[in-house]
Amino acid sequence: MILDKINTPDDLKKLSVDEMNYLADEIRELIIKKVNTTGGHMGPNLGIIEATIALHYVFNSPVDKIVFDVSHQCYPHKILTGRKEGFTDPDKYLKYTGYTAPEESEHDIFKIGHTSTAASLATGLAKARDLKGEKLNVIAIVGDGSLSGGEALEGLDNAAALGSNIVIVINDNDMSIAENHGGIYKNLKLLRDTKGQVECNLFKAMGFDYIYVEDGNSIEKMIEAFRKVKDINHPVVVHIKTIKGHGLAVAEENKEAFHWVVPGILDEKPAAPAAEDYTSITKDFILKKIEEDKTTVVVNAGTPGVFGFDADYRKKLGDHYTDVGIAEEHAVAYSSALAKAGAKPILTIMSSFVQRTYDQLSQDLCLNKSPLVILVYWGGISDADATHLCSFDMSMMSNIPNLTYLAPTNKEEYLAMLEYAYSQNQGPVAIRVPSIPFYSTGFEDKTDYSVSNKFKLEEKGEKIAILGLGNFFNLAKEVKDEVKNKLNINATLINPRFITGIDKELLETLKADHKIVITIEDGILNGGFGEKIARFYGNSDMKVLNYGAKKEFTDRVPLDELYNRYRLRKELILEDIEKILK
Amino acid sequence: MILDKINTPDDLKKLSVDEMNYLADEIRELIIKKVNTTGGHMGPNLGIIEATIALHYVFNSPVDKIVFDVSHQCYPHKILTGRKEGFTDPDKYLKYTGYTAPEESEHDIFKIGHTSTAASLATGLAKARDLKGEKLNVIAIVGDGSLSGGEALEGLDNAAALGSNIVIVINDNDMSIAENHGGIYKNLKLLRDTKGQVECNLFKAMGFDYIYVEDGNSIEKMIEAFRKVKDINHPVVVHIKTIKGHGLAVAEENKEAFHWVVPGILDEKPAAPAAEDYTSITKDFILKKIEEDKTTVVVNAGTPGVFGFDADYRKKLGDHYTDVGIAEEHAVAYSSALAKAGAKPILTIMSSFVQRTYDQLSQDLCLNKSPLVILVYWGGISDADATHLCSFDMSMMSNIPNLTYLAPTNKEEYLAMLEYAYSQNQGPVAIRVPSIPFYSTGFEDKTDYSVSNKFKLEEKGEKIAILGLGNFFNLAKEVKDEVKNKLNINATLINPRFITGIDKELLETLKADHKIVITIEDGILNGGFGEKIARFYGNSDMKVLNYGAKKEFTDRVPLDELYNRYRLRKELILEDIEKILK
Repeated sequence: MILDKINTPDDLKKLSVDEMNYLADEIRELIIKKVNTTGGHMGPNLGIIEATIALHYVFNSPVDKIVFDVSHQCYPHKILTGRKEGFTDPDKYLKYTGYTAPEESEHDIFKIGHTSTAASLATGLAKARDLKGEKLNVIAIVGDGSLSGGEALEGLDNAAALGSNIVIVINDNDMSIAENHGGIYKNLKLLRDTKGQVECNLFKAMGFDYIYVEDGNSIEKMIEAFRKVKDINHPVVVHIKTIKGHGLAVAEENKEAFHWVVPGILDEKPAAPAAEDYTSITKDFILKKIEEDKTTVVVNAGTPGVFGFDADYRKKLGDHYTDVGIAEEHAVAYSSALAKAGAKPILTIMSSFVQRTYDQLSQDLCLNKSPLVILVYWGGISDADATHLCSFDMSMMSNIPNLTYLAPTNKEEYLAMLEYAYSQNQGPVAIRVPSIPFYSTGFEDKTDYSVSNKFKLEEKGEKIAILGLGNFFNLAKEVKDEVKNKLNINATLINPRFITGIDKELLETLKADHKIVITIEDGILNGGFGEKIARFYGNSDMKVLNYGAKKEFTDRVPLDELYNRYRLRKELILEDIEKILK
Repeated sequence: MILDKINTPDDLKKLSVDEMNYLADEIRELIIKKVNTTGGHMGPNLGIIEATIALHYVFNSPVDKIVFDVSHQCYPHKILTGRKEGFTDPDKYLKYTGYTAPEESEHDIFKIGHTSTAASLATGLAKARDLKGEKLNVIAIVGDGSLSGGEALEGLDNAAALGSNIVIVINDNDMSIAENHGGIYKNLKLLRDTKGQVECNLFKAMGFDYIYVEDGNSIEKMIEAFRKVKDINHPVVVHIKTIKGHGLAVAEENKEAFHWVVPGILDEKPAAPAAEDYTSITKDFILKKIEEDKTTVVVNAGTPGVFGFDADYRKKLGDHYTDVGIAEEHAVAYSSALAKAGAKPILTIMSSFVQRTYDQLSQDLCLNKSPLVILVYWGGISDADATHLCSFDMSMMSNIPNLTYLAPTNKEEYLAMLEYAYSQNQGPVAIRVPSIPFYSTGFEDKTDYSVSNKFKLEEKGEKIAILGLGNFFNLAKEVKDEVKNKLNINATLINPRFITGIDKELLETLKADHKIVITIEDGILNGGFGEKIARFYGNSDMKVLNYGAKKEFTDRVPLDELYNRYRLRKELILEDIEKILK
């Protein structure tokens, strides 16, 4: 194998173009095999193998600085920069993260996983170079829909004004995760159609020099292009046309499905989705509402897969679906305006990406009290990469005025909350869609959720009250049982359901016959739910124990380990209770 | 006066162009007189009088929907939509807010005050119209640098893809608050220089139809332009060239100084700035550091005035100053990369606008532990408009991992923290620059701030410990004196200085001889500092009382009233202490 000889980018520079073409095939085969085993980003990495080889052939990383946007397309880069064992050795398949990671290699500058950051970050690197009087190239690789994000556009605007070397590679495969949306992508298409010749050019308009590469999957053409811009003394965009999933027929044909894949995608049909789950009932709810009210519209920011909105489903939604591109800020403002104008928007957003839009939630939405439904998916402590943690949404969102944020614990609660959120006119209501196994009580939830901050007293007991919020209601039940078994105390069990406020009346009554209040939440404690309960009881004799995650970035730490670390275990919580009772 | 006849936009439609020109003069005079009396946005409003008259002459508000970006240029609009008394009657000068406000008029759709939202919001209104099958025009008025914000660009991207009526008016006066920055503005200049004729046109590239108006301060020309686009069936940009401060010579000549003015600006020279204050020592610190280290660079997002960075000072900074445009997301990413590459960035940002960048603080900065200095200005409870509150920054920022957020209480602490933040290499350090009167102890602060979360025990007492964070350290001292005078207790006084963590060791020792811990912070309680103290003591006998603001949007409520409401008074806090001691 040619790859045997490649341990650093320098080794690459000794190869002929023919050898590099063979190398591309080897890398392609490794990526397909590895990703089919572990799951991961398939299409983006297959599409950028040739460009990455050319990049490292022409430029001199780590002296030259390369920043990958989102960095989910960094697998070929990892293979060429000393980490090929993560792809050749199945025992080491999980050794390296799927994103750039400075702790792994000097060729990775940033830990990145959210989109649209590369131009912004690269501009900072370039400015630092200029201030230090260094000579080196700064290259940003932007693709997969990242251009539609505000941070990307802000970064390009400033990059264009830099006046010195910066190379922005636009890896244009005509796709975001799903299809692209927005006026910008019409210009990209026009540029592709005219082979970069049309005068009306977004990048030139912003002040960039511009070159177009028709075959971005040709190592030779890419070397030629990169040689042209190496050591350039001003900002330039290299617009390359590539094929997402290049070299794997099924991935080229199913670009969206093969953007990110589960293990075994190539071996067999993936298991059919469960007959009913939170995703399916959400999708059914939406279709029903569209039938009832033609102003219903689902808004999504470039991640339809998270919500099970596949191409078929999106087709059913038709005009009642807006993918705004990877543009969460706009998604919130747009949805707020839809609601303000009397339409019925439902904004769907993943916990980790809701972070993009604190100010729009506060100003464009909550200050204006627009009656918007927001569905937050995947919220909770997880074994995810540090870049995709979902444990911050409650802390971030719940301290914004005028927002109601609800935490259902089962199917019926979720449906009742959905119905309430959709039909009310009071203001924005967000729902943290359960990320625990689907559970149905079988009994319709008839709660009137327009009565704010009313906790549900599930079982009245004494001495100890346990508040299990959302995903952790089950753990609260377990603790209650443990307390009964070990201490023979009938504890009180409470399902708070409201994340954004506390039920002062209920909490007040607990003072009469309770000594300890326990809160359990599936997110960081800092700024979260439990601290508000601790504050409430601050002037009283009540003891309060808060359970949840620590304020920290964890990186692919197994859930079991995290639960132990955070004492999110019935037996550990019991230990703490016993200490107080002593 | 012609204005006497104008109570709604309908009345305007009966006037001749000549009469409207007189009306413009009358409005101009009223705005100059009112703003000179109360302070407010002078230049933006003087520049848009003619366009606003034409707008209401051609379109039919409130059926047609008008959205003003930032909305600080809405004074002429307010005068024409039933609120002229706010400008003609000095007793009612303060009746109306300086921004659009739906509670004031059906002609105002959103409560807005942060930039770059208009295109996003207008797109939502247009989509709702389409879903409802209505016929009406949606118009967004964008100006004063708002184009550089990510939300604006995301909004334009989606607006261009709308496929139906939307009119984006680009009010181009060649200025942001200060001068414009970024590649986009080069294109605007090129468009102005070619009277809109150049082929390489940012807006056309994004997919908009486009018309250019050379004289945006001509009512006649603006009527002509708006007539062309009224009822248009696709997205169009109307690019109008106007003069900021039009018709007031001193404002035309000093565009930046007259963007927002203090009362009496036209009557006399504004008072000279105090010999020394937090702004002046910050500016001196920066100049000194630039002299010592050429990689020092100040980053700002379009609001240099907040930090006292006037044109003279910016000239001194030269290459060591980057105004990224109104682009806070990029500002954080750019600064993080500068720090990562070994430069010495100092990011300056106002509390209310730091809200724009939660995710970039988290992902681009804190996850990457870049040693960046962030100076947050104006943080604290205030009598500001609901759109410009500064009471949320601590709650938003302090729950992000890896960030150190410091709260100095006097000159020497601030300087020591600045020096530490600038010279350290551990990670991002933000400082909440005091927004209280300048105070110097006269003694150098020799604290080693690299030791995290070490609170300062100012005076050791007993029974009651009072933690006064940042701006409210003085109130804590007052409470201590009150406790001494009224209860004869020598309370302990603590200056926490660290917002982002708690001094567990010190808090633990308090358990021995203290019964009550009081926290006072200048921001919302929810998610803030005090709740963390309450959580810490949750399993103990310590009583904890937290003081700070409620989670709410207040709107120009006097500080006195807010302090009473939140019990931020020594005598009210004493009442609460007495209740517990009984």
